[in-house]
Amino acid sequence: MPYVNIKITKEGVTSEQKKQLIEGVTNLLRDVLGKNPQTTVVVIDEVDTDNWGIGGEQVTIRRQRGQ
Amino acid sequence: MPYVNIKITKEGVTSEQKKQLIEGVTNLLRDVLGKNPQTTVVVIDEVDTDNWGIGGEQVTIRRQRGQ
Amino acid sequence: MPYVNIKITKEGVTSEQKKQLIEGVTNLLRDVLGKNPQTTVVVIDEVDTDNWGIGGEQVTIRRQRGQ
Amino acid sequence: MPYVNIKITKEGVTSEQKKQLIEGVTNLLRDVLGKNPQTTVVVIDEVDTDNWGIGGEQVTIRRQRGQ
Amino acid sequence: MPYVNIKITKEGVTSEQKKQLIEGVTNLLRDVLGKNPQTTVVVIDEVDTDNWGIGGEQVTIRRQRGQ
Amino acid sequence: MPYVNIKITKEGVTSEQKKQLIEGVTNLLRDVLGKNPQTTVVVIDEVDTDNWGIGGEQVTIRRQRGQ
Repeated sequence: MPYVNIKITKEGVTSEQKKQLIEGVTNLLRDVLGKNPQTTVVVIDEVDTDNWGIGGEQVTIRRQRGQ
Repeated sequence: MPYVNIKITKEGVTSEQKKQLIEGVTNLLRDVLGKNPQTTVVVIDEVDTDNWGIGGEQVTIRRQRGQ
Repeated sequence: MPYVNIKITKEGVTSEQKKQLIEGVTNLLRDVLGKNPQTTVVVIDEVDTDNWGIGGEQVTIRRQRGQ
Repeated sequence: MPYVNIKITKEGVTSEQKKQLIEGVTNLLRDVLGKNPQTTVVVIDEVDTDNWGIGGEQVTIRRQRGQ
Repeated sequence: MPYVNIKITKEGVTSEQKKQLIEGVTNLLRDVLGKNPQTTVVVIDEVDTDNWGIGGEQVTIRRQRGQ
Repeated sequence: MPYVNIKITKEGVTSEQKKQLIEGVTNLLRDVLGKNPQTTVVVIDEVDTDNWGIGGEQVTIRRQRGQ
């Protein structure tokens, strides 16, 4: 019954990529800890770049500077 | 001052149902632990079915299969 | 597959009370949203009163004042 | 590498205010704990007032009553 | 700057397994989304089995029944 | 009613420092968003360095290397 929450910035992640993240994390927990995929919950939160800060700045600002 | 976070898939939950969830959880904490409703915070997060995985799959895919 | 996280201060909550919280929340989600209890995850986090703030103060301090 | 999550109701917070929150929290962690701003992550979640409960009620309802 | 939170029950996970989880998740985000490992944060929360509920029951109880 | 969660590694943070973090964050939300300190919840989670990963490594390992 692991619960995994992945928070990333909302910058065009495709459904296919989300599929790979969910699959990859679920397999990792199965392989490392023997957890049952059927009760492994993975939730992906996509966050606006205005709402994500690093280095004291909004990611929106860093992206404008090419970071 | 309990903080309760309810994460569910975004599949048409009505405002009335959210009202019942908030009321129900707040009353439960009052009845079981004697917590003051006035400082009990309940936050409901609704997550796209593409962003929620179980059994290594996106819920969107499971819904297409009738699960 | 709902995921519910209950954060409360670490102030002697008994195993029986945790049982009631888990049961109560799971039944609430079944009754209000028709969710399957078998895939409803409830996690209770107990937080030291030094680590919980309200009104800009640690709960430890408020408890010493009888609040 | 601190991770700070700020959950607030979605009630018109401006980008400038988000900037100030990110800056303020990052500086606080630098000043109090000596944490490196470059690896301090701050995420702001804005939650619909229908999805936020206090006192067993949705904030939407409380706002209609002027609270 | 992804932030990944893995919540599992506290049932003897070794440091080596935690190492593999951290490495695996970080590589997955690098390979799928091109994220920089140096700013990928992974936090593992281990939760007492009394504090984790599934099917409306504490995991402690399910373990006693061999589940 | 803001809810702020601060996750840091468990490396000897003092009660006084936690007090300053709680006070600082609560004042920041009051000053920037006009939020009422009396209903601002701040929770500090301290995480073992074995359970915190950055750059694909456990912080325990990085600390042994002087990072």
